[in-house]
Amino acid sequence: MIRIGIMGYGNLGKGVEIAVNQAPDMETVAVFTRRDPSTVKILTEGVPVVNVSEVSNWKDKIDVMILCGGSATDLPVQTPEFAKMFNVVDSFDNHAHIPEHFANVDAAAKEAGNIGVISCGWDPGMFSLMRVYSNSILPDGKDYTFWGKGVSQGHSDAIRRIDGVKNAKQYTCPVESSLEAVRSGSNPELTTRQMHTRECFVVLEDGADAARVEKEIKEMPNYFEPYDTTVHFISEEEFNKNHSGLAHGGFVFRTGKTGVNKEHNHVIEYSLKLDSNPEFTTSVLICVARAAHRMHEEGMKGCKTILDIPPAYFSTLSGEELRAHLL
Amino acid sequence: MIRIGIMGYGNLGKGVEIAVNQAPDMETVAVFTRRDPSTVKILTEGVPVVNVSEVSNWKDKIDVMILCGGSATDLPVQTPEFAKMFNVVDSFDNHAHIPEHFANVDAAAKEAGNIGVISCGWDPGMFSLMRVYSNSILPDGKDYTFWGKGVSQGHSDAIRRIDGVKNAKQYTCPVESSLEAVRSGSNPELTTRQMHTRECFVVLEDGADAARVEKEIKEMPNYFEPYDTTVHFISEEEFNKNHSGLAHGGFVFRTGKTGVNKEHNHVIEYSLKLDSNPEFTTSVLICVARAAHRMHEEGMKGCKTILDIPPAYFSTLSGEELRAHLL
Repeated sequence: MIRIGIMGYGNLGKGVEIAVNQAPDMETVAVFTRRDPSTVKILTEGVPVVNVSEVSNWKDKIDVMILCGGSATDLPVQTPEFAKMFNVVDSFDNHAHIPEHFANVDAAAKEAGNIGVISCGWDPGMFSLMRVYSNSILPDGKDYTFWGKGVSQGHSDAIRRIDGVKNAKQYTCPVESSLEAVRSGSNPELTTRQMHTRECFVVLEDGADAARVEKEIKEMPNYFEPYDTTVHFISEEEFNKNHSGLAHGGFVFRTGKTGVNKEHNHVIEYSLKLDSNPEFTTSVLICVARAAHRMHEEGMKGCKTILDIPPAYFSTLSGEELRAHLL
Repeated sequence: MIRIGIMGYGNLGKGVEIAVNQAPDMETVAVFTRRDPSTVKILTEGVPVVNVSEVSNWKDKIDVMILCGGSATDLPVQTPEFAKMFNVVDSFDNHAHIPEHFANVDAAAKEAGNIGVISCGWDPGMFSLMRVYSNSILPDGKDYTFWGKGVSQGHSDAIRRIDGVKNAKQYTCPVESSLEAVRSGSNPELTTRQMHTRECFVVLEDGADAARVEKEIKEMPNYFEPYDTTVHFISEEEFNKNHSGLAHGGFVFRTGKTGVNKEHNHVIEYSLKLDSNPEFTTSVLICVARAAHRMHEEGMKGCKTILDIPPAYFSTLSGEELRAHLL
């Protein structure tokens, strides 16, 4: 059994716990938290919740530590720090800072002889894999990534900061006609506005001016101004009833040409429709944890990404079984 | 530059030649044929066409030999044989015989210190990758593979063997409503008849009995009887004009559940729409050749499949570039 530690017990931590319970080759040995452990209720009986200050006592009892913190402030510190003690996996998703994060984790993991796999999930993660495979196969082509329909946390936060807004949720939606145009192989040039729309559900504070709030949302530079934005004002009751889900998804396309005269068009499409963004993310994370454990057993060390992992390492099946049944 | 040899110059061999010409890090150094080389005209100036009997003279002049023969009789013999001299890549697609083929290539390649990558293309190949990733991520789920719209060579051949048939082409088509049902996440149980239809375009010999031919096609066990089959009788002129293409494609789905009470559904979809089946296949083959060369340089040997290759090895980009731009 691969012994899994979970650092952080929010949506992601809980998702890891659920995914490990589904995996025949893994067990959760401890959940670590910055909170008072007695206040953290987990799902699995018999698994201790431990304050993070004691994590070094668990050095030889955990094969892979899965870091479930946020990318803004937690992971840049935690992943290199924990890579000194454990094989680690994270879902760092701040694309612009990946090279820096990679360098920090690589140095720490190499010194300790551990493996650290960063930026796993679906984007970055499975979508990255699709981009790399598809770009390699069709070098003469064009990439398209659409997100949604799903909640953008950053955009929801931006609305909540507007005066008079009590609560808000923002859905990013791909434009159906643009999806169809890409799918047809016509290689359209698409503006920001043509790729996604933004749909906002807003609960106002008592007495707030709806027209002013709507204007402030729609004119917000970068966040909403470049998009066709729809604003719905709803009651708190409706908000809680219909807008607490964590569904998400998206589409990665590569369209490209081959042939002596580039006469043949090809369309590669990968799409995800996810009822639970965090649970799908953690389902990827535990496959990566399985791979990290195997890579470490083989003597590898340092920072890796999902692009460095042989696909077979995701699976509980042997090479023979994979070749016989899934190849 | 990675020096590529091409064994066999049919649709696949020609496709490899075109794909290598598109690759900045590769060159074709020779095309090998069982025919009289003077009768084989290739696209690239300055590249010799050589009879296969002389192939052993090229042992140190080729980094990877791409084998472009058929899976029925060519590759089972050629791939192990050539793996004694070269790193090799093939597109062996006889799923039931992959374990045996793997064992033969593995023994030959290991003894010679070479790498042999078998069964690369899109199915087996990219579709296999998707099955392995998706099954690993969503262990509690269901797989669906649809093929088409595209030509099935085996079914076209079966029609041509019927008395009175001059020429024939059979298209395998996915059933649109079943695609939609799978895509919706409803996890339908689908019969053979509900997944694909078969559409046949037939040119009759003079005086042949159309009704009898149509009946023979539709009642053919295994090939057509389990499907809704449509037969169109057309002129030889129309046949040559509209049915000489090599388009193909297909869809791989994995639908699965996560959550404490399995309350969340997820749908992963991967699809290909290909104007040229052989050119897409060879576009994959040359990425695998790039990977095989790198794996060999790193000291690996023996038989591998696409499931054993780190995705980054498909690419001409460095790890730094991939992390900065595609992760």
